[in-house]
Amino acid sequence: TFYKRKLPSPPAIEFSSPEGRQLFQEALLEGSMVGFFKLMEQFNTQDEPAFCGLASLAMVLNALSIDPRRTWKGSWRWFHEAMLDCCRPLDAVKKEGITLYQASCLARCNGARVELRPYGSTTLEQFRAEVQSVCRSGEEHIVVSYSRKAFLQTGDGHFSPLGGYHRDRDLVLVLDVARFKYPPHWVPL
Amino acid sequence: TFYKRKLPSPPAIEFSSPEGRQLFQEALLEGSMVGFFKLMEQFNTQDEPAFCGLASLAMVLNALSIDPRRTWKGSWRWFHEAMLDCCRPLDAVKKEGITLYQASCLARCNGARVELRPYGSTTLEQFRAEVQSVCRSGEEHIVVSYSRKAFLQTGDGHFSPLGGYHRDRDLVLVLDVARFKYPPHWVPL
Repeated sequence: TFYKRKLPSPPAIEFSSPEGRQLFQEALLEGSMVGFFKLMEQFNTQDEPAFCGLASLAMVLNALSIDPRRTWKGSWRWFHEAMLDCCRPLDAVKKEGITLYQASCLARCNGARVELRPYGSTTLEQFRAEVQSVCRSGEEHIVVSYSRKAFLQTGDGHFSPLGGYHRDRDLVLVLDVARFKYPPHWVPL
Repeated sequence: TFYKRKLPSPPAIEFSSPEGRQLFQEALLEGSMVGFFKLMEQFNTQDEPAFCGLASLAMVLNALSIDPRRTWKGSWRWFHEAMLDCCRPLDAVKKEGITLYQASCLARCNGARVELRPYGSTTLEQFRAEVQSVCRSGEEHIVVSYSRKAFLQTGDGHFSPLGGYHRDRDLVLVLDVARFKYPPHWVPL
């Protein structure tokens, strides 16, 4: 069994390391961490190995203060990943996860406005500009679907929200929902 | 049914409000938010209405990088509140919650070093000095047991970790684990 994994660094920089905290402070003062506040309020751990997409969506739906209009537990209305059961049966998600298109469908049918950016549909420059604008706004959030291999991490396809942007070093903060595996980390865009 | 509650403000200041973010930035630059980083990495929602104590402990045990030496799910070792089942049967906790002494017992038997500060055992001055020192250290964390009534919030006895300290305004950041009810907030010490 495993107690976490060692975060391959470089390329990633651990959020709570001295360098990670310094990057955070610089990005905060520069104004690119506005979205971070609402997201960290809702930072959660995916409940199942294939639920990274659902956990990322529950986090963002709660960060956007969307009322699920159905109860979670007791008398409270709240998004939990197990409540995201439209678009694709939860049992199938448990086995195979979801695609970017299914994630977008799930976010929409739960009340979010969604703009989808499949790989290849924007240039890096356009994507960078969008990341920067969203991280400064506090009213929109980005969920990325990426391969862990690009960062030398174990595993492959993964979803997580972006918690901020560091302009001078061109780094994004990945709020990795597999919190039993890797801590949040900065990676190059 | 309820979708959140309105945070009574004053006395509390919402973490992600403009004033809350300003306080955060000041406290960060002043050096009293070191412990925040590890705690926010593990910020979670209590799973049951009476599990505030367990959720706070799971959060702090994970923030301290304590290996539970037993699996959580799949092949991963990780603290989840439902794994904190020594000291008091989980069914009893579900009905009545835990006391400060039981919380201390649970933290100890899961591998943490604990210093207990029952009400009346320290002066406000001593408590303030401890809060400040812990928030600056990053290697220790404080879980407080308090009455919500003091802050005009609905409900009464509640546990949550402290995420930081603002010296000039003498405010602490409560990382409230009842995230379906109230967001994190600054309150006067």
